[in-house]
Amino acid sequence: MKKVIFVIGVSGCGKSTIGKLLSEALDIPFFDGDDFHPESNITKMSNGQALNDADRQGWLETLNNLAKKQLNKGSCVIVCSALKQKYRDLLSLTIEDDTAWVHLNGAFDQILERVNSRADHFMPAELLQSQFDTLEIPKNAIQIDISATPENIIKIIKQELMNTSEFGLFGLGIMGKSLCRNLANNGFKISMFNRHVDSVEVDVAKNFKAQYTELAQAEAFDDISAFVNSLQQPRRIMLMVNAGKTIDYVIEDLLPHLTKNDIIIDGGNSNYKKTKERYDYLKTKGVNFIGTGVSGGEEGALKGPSIMPSGDKEAYDKVAPFLETIAAKDKNGLPCCTYVGPEGSGQFIKMVHNGVEYVEMQLLAEVTTILEALGQSPDVVANTLESWADTADSYLLEITTAIFKKKEGDDWLVKKILDKAGNKGTGNWTTIASAELGVPSTLIASALFSRYISFYKEERMELSKRFNYNTKSDLKISTDEVLKGYQFARIINHYQGFKLIAEASSKFEWDLNLSEIARIWTNGCIIRSSLMEELVSVFKDTANLLTNTELITKIDGYRPAAKKVVSEAVLSDIATPALSEAVQFLNGITTEYASANVIQAQRDYFGAHTYLRLDDASGKSHHTKWN
Amino acid sequence: MKKVIFVIGVSGCGKSTIGKLLSEALDIPFFDGDDFHPESNITKMSNGQALNDADRQGWLETLNNLAKKQLNKGSCVIVCSALKQKYRDLLSLTIEDDTAWVHLNGAFDQILERVNSRADHFMPAELLQSQFDTLEIPKNAIQIDISATPENIIKIIKQELMNTSEFGLFGLGIMGKSLCRNLANNGFKISMFNRHVDSVEVDVAKNFKAQYTELAQAEAFDDISAFVNSLQQPRRIMLMVNAGKTIDYVIEDLLPHLTKNDIIIDGGNSNYKKTKERYDYLKTKGVNFIGTGVSGGEEGALKGPSIMPSGDKEAYDKVAPFLETIAAKDKNGLPCCTYVGPEGSGQFIKMVHNGVEYVEMQLLAEVTTILEALGQSPDVVANTLESWADTADSYLLEITTAIFKKKEGDDWLVKKILDKAGNKGTGNWTTIASAELGVPSTLIASALFSRYISFYKEERMELSKRFNYNTKSDLKISTDEVLKGYQFARIINHYQGFKLIAEASSKFEWDLNLSEIARIWTNGCIIRSSLMEELVSVFKDTANLLTNTELITKIDGYRPAAKKVVSEAVLSDIATPALSEAVQFLNGITTEYASANVIQAQRDYFGAHTYLRLDDASGKSHHTKWN
Repeated sequence: MKKVIFVIGVSGCGKSTIGKLLSEALDIPFFDGDDFHPESNITKMSNGQALNDADRQGWLETLNNLAKKQLNKGSCVIVCSALKQKYRDLLSLTIEDDTAWVHLNGAFDQILERVNSRADHFMPAELLQSQFDTLEIPKNAIQIDISATPENIIKIIKQELMNTSEFGLFGLGIMGKSLCRNLANNGFKISMFNRHVDSVEVDVAKNFKAQYTELAQAEAFDDISAFVNSLQQPRRIMLMVNAGKTIDYVIEDLLPHLTKNDIIIDGGNSNYKKTKERYDYLKTKGVNFIGTGVSGGEEGALKGPSIMPSGDKEAYDKVAPFLETIAAKDKNGLPCCTYVGPEGSGQFIKMVHNGVEYVEMQLLAEVTTILEALGQSPDVVANTLESWADTADSYLLEITTAIFKKKEGDDWLVKKILDKAGNKGTGNWTTIASAELGVPSTLIASALFSRYISFYKEERMELSKRFNYNTKSDLKISTDEVLKGYQFARIINHYQGFKLIAEASSKFEWDLNLSEIARIWTNGCIIRSSLMEELVSVFKDTANLLTNTELITKIDGYRPAAKKVVSEAVLSDIATPALSEAVQFLNGITTEYASANVIQAQRDYFGAHTYLRLDDASGKSHHTKWN
Repeated sequence: MKKVIFVIGVSGCGKSTIGKLLSEALDIPFFDGDDFHPESNITKMSNGQALNDADRQGWLETLNNLAKKQLNKGSCVIVCSALKQKYRDLLSLTIEDDTAWVHLNGAFDQILERVNSRADHFMPAELLQSQFDTLEIPKNAIQIDISATPENIIKIIKQELMNTSEFGLFGLGIMGKSLCRNLANNGFKISMFNRHVDSVEVDVAKNFKAQYTELAQAEAFDDISAFVNSLQQPRRIMLMVNAGKTIDYVIEDLLPHLTKNDIIIDGGNSNYKKTKERYDYLKTKGVNFIGTGVSGGEEGALKGPSIMPSGDKEAYDKVAPFLETIAAKDKNGLPCCTYVGPEGSGQFIKMVHNGVEYVEMQLLAEVTTILEALGQSPDVVANTLESWADTADSYLLEITTAIFKKKEGDDWLVKKILDKAGNKGTGNWTTIASAELGVPSTLIASALFSRYISFYKEERMELSKRFNYNTKSDLKISTDEVLKGYQFARIINHYQGFKLIAEASSKFEWDLNLSEIARIWTNGCIIRSSLMEELVSVFKDTANLLTNTELITKIDGYRPAAKKVVSEAVLSDIATPALSEAVQFLNGITTEYASANVIQAQRDYFGAHTYLRLDDASGKSHHTKWN
């Protein structure tokens, strides 16, 4: 600990006594602020004149310089009444984070009696009253009740000084708890907060602390003020609460307790536009806001998630030691956490991450459907997927393998799960962002809509009776072709995801680094895979993975199988929307002359929207009377 | 014209003289308000006491009753000072729309001199001053300068009374102009407004009026106040300006000139959420807001568009005679205009209309690409499309036929159009609405994204060189199969469009009538077709067209060809995303057991999101430790 400890309070509160005892207890130098007045102030005071703020200016600067000088060597105690906030601002100028305030609090009568009972002292009540009138009680000080014995006061101050936490975690859901344990396991002193809701959420933090030995040093709170005051400044408070309006309510609850330069980190799946709004709002309050994606689920959060923080770089630097320590590590040992870019960019890439994840999940759902249509039982499907790990390794492939292995009694558990897929907003937002930004993220939309279709279970059951349905036994495809089709679609999926990021980066002037983004997605997160590792180097040379020679060769190799799988599935009435759309998309994006000329002609025909011509490079609009 | 004409103004302004002359000129009864005072008022006045508002209350009610009684027979003139707005509100209570105000305006000195120069009159200056102090100048009156001769005053009043327009059109772009001509051709007296922008938009309305004989009776304005005042009350003002912020600016420009119960109609492609906001906002101002989709392009607007108005039914009833007259007529002669539902519902169905239109256009772009790949030259394509009109008639098929016929010199014009498709927001919004409402409008997203892909012309040109591309000569499909695939996809497209409307109707409690919506889309609009005519009766029995026996039979008939077309196109590297998605969608929505169970297992594995079980009807959430 290196701190300048200012002991402050009104005349007669006992500053010098406590200050000296504290310097002895901590074995650090003691300074009495009054010893540093310039000659002019001393003259004025000895003539019985009160000092004005102009008189104090130079003196406070002297004390600030003293504090800074001492900080180079270590800690010190300085006593000084410092009744107004602006005096304290001057005293701690540029060393706010290394300053501790101890405020000696007493009642008017108590102090008056105490001073006047001393043999050689007399203070008129008017003088003390003017001190109380001037006093602006500091918000961020250790508040000491002077009724306590000096010994106890020193004990309390020592505890408070030593005991502050480095990092606060707000909200102890599944992810919040795992992050707490991760931080504690990494040796960080943390404070943990969970709200109290009568008979619903009671002693959540306290009980959680009791549950895990690694949390022995952690502090548990259900009172916001105590939680915030337990934190070192600038405070680092990570919110792990439900995205949406809750974030705004929590911010409003926290704000009265925060001070300038504190940092709020939103670790939930917030909408990137909202993150920008909150960032701007908190800027006006002098509070830093870091929006960060966190991926990895419960296990990732505990053992090392992928973390995607954005906001001001200076604020990031103050939370980097924590986030980078708890993050997963890539194969070179570097943290899967990097400064992504300004304002909402971290939440944006997390949103796209989840969109890519939707597609990877959908593709696995489709290929396992095909494998089953080829006659494979779930354990054979699991073996097939397992064998794919050599060339198509990914976390989602691994867990899907495990899922198809899982039995419940004699039957496979996966067969008993209701086929209505949930969604919590990010796939939805990615589709909306695509539509808004003019980027064709067809696979993400397809995966989202497949979940929506699955939700119409009752209608599906009804319609399945009305329409003729092929048997699926006649599929003329091999398991290896299914793998190739899957690999094909995954490359297109990653192309589309990074394309969306690149277009947003350009539109919002975020200057994002695609290779770094791919790198922090190589471990800890849900879409980690060997393909993602390949992309780290691919994106060093290009922002468009379809121009990379190795990937072109792969696509050329996979494409015939992909076409065959899709075409056979279509003929056999098996829904494979994402696989199909991957083939369609590559056809679209590699078509030199698209059929959009027909659409432009139609638009000009009925709406006089005009068109451009292939043979007119001037960009002039043309209109035709077609009929 | 049936009107109560109140001639009002301060004492001595000449109300009685002008009122009597006016009643003679118009040959309608004349009443002097002062003749209707109760005994108590007369006593008070003859004692030299001033009347207070309580004294006036009963008297004003008497005049209001008189006015109402007279209105049953015809028009009349009533003179009454009516200096305050609240007096005028009482006078015109429940007959606001049938009341005209004539305010005789003079300067203080002018009136004082005029009264006192008469032999038997003397008015103290104080009395006149108190009248001027009390006067609240009416906003909606015909303002008369009393310096004019009585003859001229009567002439002006007669002109103003007779000459008011029934309907105002604000914004003379392509659509606005066509609607003006349509209204005028139908015998409506209209006022037309276009803003003045120096050297850019000068005398737009005036020049437009001069251009067409049918506009001889129309009034042309570039001044908002004059435009508004030229309209009968309640004013009906239809905005045909660019959607977006412009609408709000125009509303703010109009508001100071409007009065209670006036009606603003937004005929642009506004976002339905914005329409709701504007509706709510204008409600607070006492102004009615009707959001209406208008489809049909330039020609439709002129000869009869499809019109989709929503808002308050009472307000709709006041604009219905205009909108229903200018609308296209269905095959039974009924207008293709109906009251759609509350607040933004009209704009919502217009948005979906445009989404369906995007898909119909995209399908035609895809089928013509296939026909060309089959070796058909544009004129053969045109002949093929023409031959489809028997079974697949639609406006878009007709214009696409004409497009493929159009030659420029020796070559076909369509070949020279740049293949980058534009979009103006509604396809985008439909996709966003689908994502937000949880409805799988896969074809609309596909059509939107196809336009987006087309926009990457430079990338397409670059990538087309890098990837192997099949020749397309080997397609094993017939023209008839292409037609069937097209018909198949169109049914799915209409299913999805009406599904989105039905889901929005249910979510927002709009209570929309799908059959009526289909009916107003059978003529005038861009997606009119024989299929749409079929849907009018289909939706009388069901909200889900996939449960209609005739349509099921058709789909069963088309489906094998659709599958073949898609599968062959995939094998030949021809992009047919919408045709393909139609097949995929029917597979999805008719699948009894979807692959979403795999997705639910994955979500539970990595995020502990839990799942429901097929064998547990209780709806309980289950969670498994999978590894």
